[in-house]
Amino acid sequence: MVGQSGGPTAVINQSLAGVVQEALQHDAIEGIYGARNGVEGVLREDFVDLRAQGKYVMEEVAQTPSAGLGSCRFKPKEDDCKEIFKIFEKHNVRYFFYIGGNDSALATGIINKIAQEQNYDLHVFHCPKTIDNDLLVTDHCPGYGSAAKYVAQAFMGNDLDNRSIPGIKIDVVMGRNAGWLTAASALARVNEGDGPHMICLPERSYTVKEFVEQIEKIYAANKRALISVSEGLADADGNVWLQSDKVRAELKELEMGVLVDWMDATGKIEDSAGGAKLDAFGHAQLSGSGALADLLASVTKIHMYRKLGKKVRLRADTLGYAQRSFAGCVSEADAQEARESGAFAVRVALSGTKSGSICFRRLPSESGKYLCDVFRAELEDVSGVNFPKGKKQYRPMEDNLIAADKFDVTPEFVQWARPLVGTLAVKGMLLPVAKK
Amino acid sequence: MVGQSGGPTAVINQSLAGVVQEALQHDAIEGIYGARNGVEGVLREDFVDLRAQGKYVMEEVAQTPSAGLGSCRFKPKEDDCKEIFKIFEKHNVRYFFYIGGNDSALATGIINKIAQEQNYDLHVFHCPKTIDNDLLVTDHCPGYGSAAKYVAQAFMGNDLDNRSIPGIKIDVVMGRNAGWLTAASALARVNEGDGPHMICLPERSYTVKEFVEQIEKIYAANKRALISVSEGLADADGNVWLQSDKVRAELKELEMGVLVDWMDATGKIEDSAGGAKLDAFGHAQLSGSGALADLLASVTKIHMYRKLGKKVRLRADTLGYAQRSFAGCVSEADAQEARESGAFAVRVALSGTKSGSICFRRLPSESGKYLCDVFRAELEDVSGVNFPKGKKQYRPMEDNLIAADKFDVTPEFVQWARPLVGTLAVKGMLLPVAKK
Repeated sequence: MVGQSGGPTAVINQSLAGVVQEALQHDAIEGIYGARNGVEGVLREDFVDLRAQGKYVMEEVAQTPSAGLGSCRFKPKEDDCKEIFKIFEKHNVRYFFYIGGNDSALATGIINKIAQEQNYDLHVFHCPKTIDNDLLVTDHCPGYGSAAKYVAQAFMGNDLDNRSIPGIKIDVVMGRNAGWLTAASALARVNEGDGPHMICLPERSYTVKEFVEQIEKIYAANKRALISVSEGLADADGNVWLQSDKVRAELKELEMGVLVDWMDATGKIEDSAGGAKLDAFGHAQLSGSGALADLLASVTKIHMYRKLGKKVRLRADTLGYAQRSFAGCVSEADAQEARESGAFAVRVALSGTKSGSICFRRLPSESGKYLCDVFRAELEDVSGVNFPKGKKQYRPMEDNLIAADKFDVTPEFVQWARPLVGTLAVKGMLLPVAKK
Repeated sequence: MVGQSGGPTAVINQSLAGVVQEALQHDAIEGIYGARNGVEGVLREDFVDLRAQGKYVMEEVAQTPSAGLGSCRFKPKEDDCKEIFKIFEKHNVRYFFYIGGNDSALATGIINKIAQEQNYDLHVFHCPKTIDNDLLVTDHCPGYGSAAKYVAQAFMGNDLDNRSIPGIKIDVVMGRNAGWLTAASALARVNEGDGPHMICLPERSYTVKEFVEQIEKIYAANKRALISVSEGLADADGNVWLQSDKVRAELKELEMGVLVDWMDATGKIEDSAGGAKLDAFGHAQLSGSGALADLLASVTKIHMYRKLGKKVRLRADTLGYAQRSFAGCVSEADAQEARESGAFAVRVALSGTKSGSICFRRLPSESGKYLCDVFRAELEDVSGVNFPKGKKQYRPMEDNLIAADKFDVTPEFVQWARPLVGTLAVKGMLLPVAKK
């Protein structure tokens, strides 16, 4: 049985295809079933026969972004697990592969733990996927490379656009807790002076004053500015800007009360629609709204207008769901590794190992060539469930990847990320040969 | 002399390469110069030697989105033109190619008219580019096909995403006056039940009530909904929603005053930053803000909450500048035609014709194969400058392309648009074979 869970990626179906492809080669496996919408589909016995799909269909699905089986955001409890095992027993399911992110590793761990307690003979494996790259243990995670490629190419385009019609452009990038995806915007830099000229990560905190003054400096030097900001942009308390009392207080101090009124008005809309949304795992909704980008644009617009006494061309985009599911932007390396992780999980499970999460490890290479191996880690180490309370259950960017002034990444980050995104689009530039 | 003007596209540099490639083959042409930032660069004599670029650089630039020479939004007046001719005379410029959209056709027409009045011997040609496809005369316009491909693939991804985690997703698409680009979202439909399930175009008007009730109907039937909306979404008076008194009045009537407060709060921010922005041609800024998408999400969220008594998963994205400049999403047909239009303009100019705009015309074909010819039209017919006052100077979608219920396009539109976007990404789907 295989299922998919959490937010989709461009290559989550490659992992599915990897599981199926490998499982087809083992006589011990009598049937290969896909659970629709992850654990929810297990509970309602909604299964797809993956053996019956045929190679052509599976290969088409593998190339298609988003979860082909459908996804869910469901955290199984002990009673759910008992029900799951009843259903598994009925269909003689002894191998379960769950493709997903942090929360899915947690769910897989719960299922594994209760299977052991209940003495249900089950091999349970977590196949990693996330565009955020915030999974513990692994060097990087399938799904990240393709999302990073999308972000890099979106910033390439935005940089060229901003060069062509100068002004200030702010782009908000996905990644709630970790800045890996926002950092990938740095890969858009090809020619001298290329943006992004400033990168704000959730691993650091920013005041409104710091934010606008840094942009002011960049604009003064370049006559344009392309800014990359994580949706997890936070204040010194770790609160995201839209929900930050510190930001509100600072806006008032900066005589931008008009923005506090707007934030209040925005909050009241949520109240009229049933209140702020938290998912089953307790995360607030940050994506699917342009509010942060609009706030950043407004703050900057007012600041620059006051400084220069005239309007600066200012635009802000929220890169949106295209980051995780745009059709037609896949990193070759990412697709291959996603496939590999699914196939490897099946091989490890069939070798007799009862549980684990599939991870990647870079090998040192004299030539600098990208070489990456795959290995099994303990479920608990990846989900972080055994961590001391209060310790982060996800992987933030390490300090050596973030510039000391907190407004950029380091060359080490670019070196780490570059092989993961595969081929990037061409970014040509006319030679500055003036008419003689 | 060649220049680029207006909003960039993915293939505007292909047109530039077409001009250069053709000009290089004619001995009569002694120099090939690019004006940086269009007419602005002419006025400040900021030229790039395009002959000195070399083939490799030009081909790299051709594959690069956005205006390699830099762009502008500048409407030349009579005095500017006199200045332009002085500079042209100084450098012996007798051929001028201006790559741009409606406003650039207008600018080219002004330069042509004043050249004639001033007896300055000049060949002036407009090479079309626009992602909006709203140019008069031509069947379609270079730049549209690639933007339409981006929109189609973004909607493919959003549809798969929405299938995988059901809810309501609203995407706002560029296109101020005409719905061509929004309509291209229909090309994302591959499998049964695929979205977008509703398409709102600027050629029609919509009340808030119509909008939310249509979504309610779709959601009831499909348990999910993917909605495509033009940034030019307008009320019955032709005013865009964010600036519509009718929409405000209706929101109050629907007891959604909280949204009117939010619209007021948004308006006040603009006042603090120097007032609402109009460009040199008098157009209001619609892009580069998530406000419309957030308004539509909020209206729908409140409506659905009241109808169902529970929250529906609701997200909205504004597709943003990636539509016109994402690096790595180019329609092959579009790239070829953009190149062709530049080269053809040079050939027509060198044959002695004094002015014109390059257009495309589809040929009837028995097999259904896409066959398209290129021809010269009068500048004035393309810019619409001679139109009676009040008549639209751009091309809206024709009635036969819009569904009678105004919430979709017709099969005729899909047939018209499909060849323009070239190859589309794969959208595979698992066969619904249940476990036996």
